[in-house]
Amino acid sequence: MISQTAEYALRAVVFLADRADVPQTTQQIAKVTCVPAGYLAKVMQGLRRAGLVAAQRGLHGGFTLARPADELTVLDVVRAVDPLPRIERCPLGLSGHQTLCPLHRRLDGAVALVEKALSESTIAELLTEPKRGKGPKPLCSLTSSDG
Amino acid sequence: MISQTAEYALRAVVFLADRADVPQTTQQIAKVTCVPAGYLAKVMQGLRRAGLVAAQRGLHGGFTLARPADELTVLDVVRAVDPLPRIERCPLGLSGHQTLCPLHRRLDGAVALVEKALSESTIAELLTEPKRGKGPKPLCSLTSSDG
Repeated sequence: MISQTAEYALRAVVFLADRADVPQTTQQIAKVTCVPAGYLAKVMQGLRRAGLVAAQRGLHGGFTLARPADELTVLDVVRAVDPLPRIERCPLGLSGHQTLCPLHRRLDGAVALVEKALSESTIAELLTEPKRGKGPKPLCSLTSSDG
Repeated sequence: MISQTAEYALRAVVFLADRADVPQTTQQIAKVTCVPAGYLAKVMQGLRRAGLVAAQRGLHGGFTLARPADELTVLDVVRAVDPLPRIERCPLGLSGHQTLCPLHRRLDGAVALVEKALSESTIAELLTEPKRGKGPKPLCSLTSSDG
């Protein structure tokens, strides 16, 4: 439902949140998130342009979150790289229709529901949640392959 | 959020529901729903295979709904041609993860919300609703270009 780009951006942001203020290179992020490095580099540029991550150059450079993880929602990340398309006018292209027909009102309403749900989870919550239960770690793999 | 194929299938089904039991040809449906006829022909075959529409051959042949519109939900139509992808296992491909991580639980939960919302509207409701208000007719164009 969200795009591949948005999915990859979320994995990267969750990983950066878990690493707090320690910069992570594209290669490090790519390895843990299982995203091809070339694709990930573009995703990271999108996140940087949107102000969600900061890039530091140099020997110990890399990406860090530009905002606290508890002030960053899942929806913020999706919107930064590939927003969910809302239906704002008649998709049949008919002029003169100021309001949506019942079908397209329903479909747009469903998108609104998703936006609301994704706005209710912060990235910080995704990190802390598994500590309360027996579920896997955030992003499944954070403990195993990130060295 | 739903695919183009699902959007086109919904337009076609709403139109057929509005025409009740009078068969409509692919050309007639294509004109009103603003869907390219070749694309629509494939969508209609998908709906026929799924048992949602019936095809009648001959001079006055065409497609009709195979079920009453009040027993057919928006979700039924979407599922017939292009179901929303649920997240059933770790998208990072990690073996041994029997449950989803918090991120993917949230994303799958959003898909479930959409399915629930779309299952709560029948096609019949989409037709009757505008009669209660000042909104456009079902599918916006049903009154103008379907002759």
